[in-house]
Amino acid sequence: MKSYNEMTTEELMALKEQLTSEYEDVKAKGLSLDMSRGKPAATQLDLAMDMLDVLTSSSILKSENGTDCRNYGVLDGIPEAKELMGAMMDAPADQVIIYGNSSLNIMYDTISRSMTHGVMGSTPWMKLPEVKWLCPVPGYDRHFAICEHFGIEMINVPMTEDGPDMDLVEKLVSEDDAIKGIWCVPMYSNPQGITYSDETVRRFANLKPAASDFRIFWDNAYCIHHLYFDEKAVLLDILKECEKAGNPDMVYKFGSTSKVSFPGSGIAALASSKANLEYIKKQLTLQTIGHDKINQLRHVRYFKNYDGLMEHMKKQADIMRPKFEAVLDVLDKELGGLGIGSWIAPKGGYFISFDALPGCAKAIVAKAKEAGVVMTGAGATYPYKKDPSDSNIRIAPTFPTPEDLAVAAEIFVLSVKLVSIDKLLESR
Amino acid sequence: MKSYNEMTTEELMALKEQLTSEYEDVKAKGLSLDMSRGKPAATQLDLAMDMLDVLTSSSILKSENGTDCRNYGVLDGIPEAKELMGAMMDAPADQVIIYGNSSLNIMYDTISRSMTHGVMGSTPWMKLPEVKWLCPVPGYDRHFAICEHFGIEMINVPMTEDGPDMDLVEKLVSEDDAIKGIWCVPMYSNPQGITYSDETVRRFANLKPAASDFRIFWDNAYCIHHLYFDEKAVLLDILKECEKAGNPDMVYKFGSTSKVSFPGSGIAALASSKANLEYIKKQLTLQTIGHDKINQLRHVRYFKNYDGLMEHMKKQADIMRPKFEAVLDVLDKELGGLGIGSWIAPKGGYFISFDALPGCAKAIVAKAKEAGVVMTGAGATYPYKKDPSDSNIRIAPTFPTPEDLAVAAEIFVLSVKLVSIDKLLESR
Repeated sequence: MKSYNEMTTEELMALKEQLTSEYEDVKAKGLSLDMSRGKPAATQLDLAMDMLDVLTSSSILKSENGTDCRNYGVLDGIPEAKELMGAMMDAPADQVIIYGNSSLNIMYDTISRSMTHGVMGSTPWMKLPEVKWLCPVPGYDRHFAICEHFGIEMINVPMTEDGPDMDLVEKLVSEDDAIKGIWCVPMYSNPQGITYSDETVRRFANLKPAASDFRIFWDNAYCIHHLYFDEKAVLLDILKECEKAGNPDMVYKFGSTSKVSFPGSGIAALASSKANLEYIKKQLTLQTIGHDKINQLRHVRYFKNYDGLMEHMKKQADIMRPKFEAVLDVLDKELGGLGIGSWIAPKGGYFISFDALPGCAKAIVAKAKEAGVVMTGAGATYPYKKDPSDSNIRIAPTFPTPEDLAVAAEIFVLSVKLVSIDKLLESR
Repeated sequence: MKSYNEMTTEELMALKEQLTSEYEDVKAKGLSLDMSRGKPAATQLDLAMDMLDVLTSSSILKSENGTDCRNYGVLDGIPEAKELMGAMMDAPADQVIIYGNSSLNIMYDTISRSMTHGVMGSTPWMKLPEVKWLCPVPGYDRHFAICEHFGIEMINVPMTEDGPDMDLVEKLVSEDDAIKGIWCVPMYSNPQGITYSDETVRRFANLKPAASDFRIFWDNAYCIHHLYFDEKAVLLDILKECEKAGNPDMVYKFGSTSKVSFPGSGIAALASSKANLEYIKKQLTLQTIGHDKINQLRHVRYFKNYDGLMEHMKKQADIMRPKFEAVLDVLDKELGGLGIGSWIAPKGGYFISFDALPGCAKAIVAKAKEAGVVMTGAGATYPYKKDPSDSNIRIAPTFPTPEDLAVAAEIFVLSVKLVSIDKLLESR
């Protein structure tokens, strides 16, 4: 395959004509396909339906320590739920708080509390002249939206294949005490599917931040979301590494079963040092009497333990893997060697990250949309929705059916080709 | 019955000796009874167990508009849940947001958001030199704790039999733009069981607050928690009254099914003007992708509609009523005419409010505890836990069994008598 860059203008013009005709044909079909959000498909949700049968009117709804899960009480979760989520999140049960249905909500609340009350006695961030945050890019749009909402200045940190650029992270956090946090999706990162190397995790644990209230926001959303169970990524336990490094309070781990059981009806948790948890519980006890213990019990009785979770996730992977492979096949076949885009084949998580020629992402997403394929908005993977090189596009292959996905991927690559040709011609 | 005040010192001394002996006898039993929190009894929770059978692995988990309740999405609740909660909370379905499991959490979040972002464009409260709040007293300790957490200065407003002293409320809110809100439990108030009169509600709706971001926090926690369904209290709809008065945005209504289905596993909601809801949703969409729609569906399919809720609450009342009456009987029989305490017989809600002789509440609660009966801490019904006359005690009769309750009430009145005698003797 000849790269587009090597083609003559005439060749590109001819190709454009042919591709435009193909594009108009699919556009005429009036399709409506969605590769925009990391949503499980209905077939994945079907896998957890038996969870609805584990608690019935004849069940005894008591936790293992005798608590009546139907009544008020238990701020931080029933013991067996802490055990289960701790196993999933690589944390001892006594360093876990079980929350409601959303880890995003925990992250939001954690920042909100820091804004109004600081962190373990530090000055409330709202009282500081400025608060800054490190954002590995490309990253998760909902993380960035929280910072933007609170007026926190976001600083881009490039991702490498081992995780964020740690030279830059170390330099920035040690120099500027206005930097109070960093977003991390350390395993099968959103959107690139990168898992942080052991060295990256150790360097995180050994940071020497200028701000005593600097915290690593470790959003391990995809910790058991492997696509290939025989070549699972392995992530070092940052909580333990932070302890070893003498920085026990520097990290908050977030996790949930949103993409394990039912999104919106799962359970979410925070794992951290006991000192952090004690501080957090002082506020949490004012915010709520407790979270949904019946749903905690339902999850534990259904999944039982870590092995149960893994068995379940293997079934999910069997559904997801062919979808990822279908998209990657189309990318390989249609774009391989053309020099108009690059991507990483992820081993887990929910996304494929695609980098187009600089200046092309917005136009590609618009082009795909015109032909009926909704992608995540270009720029969404960057703070303030501003991708400086207008290049990154997040592909979410899980929600559509395999048939729809094949069509959507074809439309996507067609859009990439057409926009890239225009861009190349423009610069000649 | 001779009032204690009319007794001679000798009579009081003799009585004290006799009561002390009775007290030592019960104390020797080493009881452990709890009348401290407004928790439903297990028998009340048993009434809702069939709710666990309405959704099973063979259910279709779609809302009436076709949404798959198992997946992400729907920020403000499924339509049928809005309908159900709207009916309960006296609000049109399109003026309702369904949240998670806790109305307390909604109230906390509402204040937290106002601290960091203000209200519909007003200055964030954290940026103001001071924020004040009106607190009808006696009131709910968890309300006060939220204000205290955020450093909001609380101002006591006495309750009357028609609700808060509205002369004072009107005066204060019109004069001071630092006053941003007022806590109200308008029906079967916590702890007195008072329902606001129509005039009180209208005067609330017609307030002319100096602060444009003043809001009435209408925590209608006991809106369907009648003890006597043939003589139910009726509360005017403040949302409608505010509209009529040209103050459509001045009130937030809060409610939940915590004491209807299962505390901690119910659904909670906010009802307000559309303008308020639009503003709130802009923040909510950053905080979460959505709340637990499966639990929303479970509630709707179980209760079906307002009539279903009422049928259920009648069964709860049948369990609760004898408990309230048992305590009230003991109070009447043992304290009637003695001039050492007053109380209101509530027609709904979760509490009986008892007013001891000034300066006696703390000592009575301590005395009861010594004999094995835990009451809500004296002072808890006031901001900063400071009851200026050390008089009010909240009695929560729902959680203990009827047998335990009879014993606990006897210990309570014994404690009241002993402490009151000491107080009277002291002043002679």
